[in-house]
Amino acid sequence: MRLNRIIRNITASAALFILSMTVHAQKKQKPLLIDEQGSFAVGGTIKTEAGHFNVNDALSPQGQTFHGDHAYVFYQKPVKAHKYPLVFLHGAGQSKKTWETTADGREGFQNIFLLRKFSVYLIDQPRRGEAGKSMVEATIKPTADEQFWFTQFRIGNYPNYFPNVQFPKDSIALEQFYRQMTPNTGAFDATVITAAVSSLFDKINAGILVTHSQGGGPGWLTAIKNDRVKAVVAYEPYSGFVFPEGELPAPIKSAGLFGELKGVTIPLSDFKKLTQIPIVIYYGDNIAKEPTNVWNKDHWRSGLEMARLWAAAINKHGGNATVIHLPEVGIMGNTHFPFSDLNNLQVADELSKWLKQKGLDK
Amino acid sequence: MRLNRIIRNITASAALFILSMTVHAQKKQKPLLIDEQGSFAVGGTIKTEAGHFNVNDALSPQGQTFHGDHAYVFYQKPVKAHKYPLVFLHGAGQSKKTWETTADGREGFQNIFLLRKFSVYLIDQPRRGEAGKSMVEATIKPTADEQFWFTQFRIGNYPNYFPNVQFPKDSIALEQFYRQMTPNTGAFDATVITAAVSSLFDKINAGILVTHSQGGGPGWLTAIKNDRVKAVVAYEPYSGFVFPEGELPAPIKSAGLFGELKGVTIPLSDFKKLTQIPIVIYYGDNIAKEPTNVWNKDHWRSGLEMARLWAAAINKHGGNATVIHLPEVGIMGNTHFPFSDLNNLQVADELSKWLKQKGLDK
Repeated sequence: MRLNRIIRNITASAALFILSMTVHAQKKQKPLLIDEQGSFAVGGTIKTEAGHFNVNDALSPQGQTFHGDHAYVFYQKPVKAHKYPLVFLHGAGQSKKTWETTADGREGFQNIFLLRKFSVYLIDQPRRGEAGKSMVEATIKPTADEQFWFTQFRIGNYPNYFPNVQFPKDSIALEQFYRQMTPNTGAFDATVITAAVSSLFDKINAGILVTHSQGGGPGWLTAIKNDRVKAVVAYEPYSGFVFPEGELPAPIKSAGLFGELKGVTIPLSDFKKLTQIPIVIYYGDNIAKEPTNVWNKDHWRSGLEMARLWAAAINKHGGNATVIHLPEVGIMGNTHFPFSDLNNLQVADELSKWLKQKGLDK
Repeated sequence: MRLNRIIRNITASAALFILSMTVHAQKKQKPLLIDEQGSFAVGGTIKTEAGHFNVNDALSPQGQTFHGDHAYVFYQKPVKAHKYPLVFLHGAGQSKKTWETTADGREGFQNIFLLRKFSVYLIDQPRRGEAGKSMVEATIKPTADEQFWFTQFRIGNYPNYFPNVQFPKDSIALEQFYRQMTPNTGAFDATVITAAVSSLFDKINAGILVTHSQGGGPGWLTAIKNDRVKAVVAYEPYSGFVFPEGELPAPIKSAGLFGELKGVTIPLSDFKKLTQIPIVIYYGDNIAKEPTNVWNKDHWRSGLEMARLWAAAINKHGGNATVIHLPEVGIMGNTHFPFSDLNNLQVADELSKWLKQKGLDK
């Protein structure tokens, strides 16, 4: 028993040592030469209480303000940056951390694309992370739900990992993954997020918007609102697909735990703005091809099907939208987070190829 | 009327132009050469609900986990870094943003000390910012209180700025300042914060802890808990001053809105650990010398007096603690945030001088 434990400890230490050597080897690729970096708040609104502020009654709200619903942005510009920066918008329950170091300590898209000479803007959307001041009240509870997310995010069907999954199978990485989630400090509101992200594009003038999951919906709306969005890259969008009035497809039934998936109608004049820019959508692996009762695989089947209907609608109106199901281009095993999976350099290469094709990496 | 408005607009544009030129000129000082950067969660606890997780009943909490109360850390290591990194812990209502770009767009301590070849670790403490997963429930309300904070933080007595204040007087900077606050997602708990920051020092091996305001208390506790803390630098600590049993000074009465200020007793053996490392405490300007009814100036008078009693107790036991009231060394006009004030390069120089004196910049 005791010997078993010692052997287990030695094995764990050896694994950690090998892991740290790998990380070290990766990190030593090249130093980053950063021309400028910083952070700021952008967008948001203000409420002012009635009355006049009295400095001798300073704990009373009269005449005081509350600023909220802004985004927080951290940016870095490498020396000799390409013209268009990449602007990263996270998904549900995530923050800008989603694009930083991966759960097992490898480089995320932040560093990978800095090394490829893109300026990066990492957003904490309004009511999330360091942009926590919300114009609406919220109650936050420590709800035990991580095995649900493990499954929903297609690492596997908990406690089983998908056999080919590109997610590290050690407990340290899984713990980091669970701890990178962070709650809403106010209800999710696509209009609020769109307003803040659009303000960011006003500030930076032009860029490529990269969204993940729930960020997809506000992503399309930002591109409609602001022609400074020069392209959209969406990883595994699910909700918020917008169609012109009269062209809404039937809801897609799904065994997924969020039920059937519906599109949303918008005026044709708004929809047509999405036909003016290149758009690419990526989905990972272990998504059902046909309806199934395996709920996570079926949830994402409905997302992928809706994305294809949506891209077809965009292209019918003269647009330029592509859906890439990564296994179909030979990239296997990706979870809901392709940009941080074990093969994220390969996933990044696929994006670099697309950016080059569209002339977006000048 | 219309001419007035045009002139006002021209003046505002000119001011903005001059501001942006200044920022630009500052930013162009030198590119940062970053050997490594990344982020991770550290510390924290786990709760597991009773029962067994069933993937076909995945929205039920049975057998599911919740990870919370970790810190989030973003770090950068410059090429040829000094031996000891600077580890930055923010104050109440703040996040790591507090050390980044200032409200008016200048370099914060993050960039200033990277350029001076220190590795930097920027913490979002447990239950704040991107470390939002809290083990305790919280309700967050959009409370209008910003004119209180303007006054409490000694920018002035709202709406008046202190005549010599080192805070920009334009509305854009003030808006950024208000928006950099972010709420607790669970009650402030010094023990929880100390545990997470101590775990960070275990991970990085050794470093210099730099705290602000409310971070001061967890700062002393971390240094007691973990001898990998090689020095503590505290900007304007207020609460959490620890004294050995039997040496607690009388509470200091104050017209400040938090009332009288009390120390806290700890065992002598713990207290003595604070005598083993160099400690420096800085306070800014517009703090009363004698008791006064101007509540913000009197609040910080009680803090400064308590800090002096505390440093005397440390030194009586053979320690090495210094309190520097910045106006007494000729640095005038600082608010509660000296490290981001208009003269923050001068404030940084003062810190660099101390680090050099103590041999901490090798």
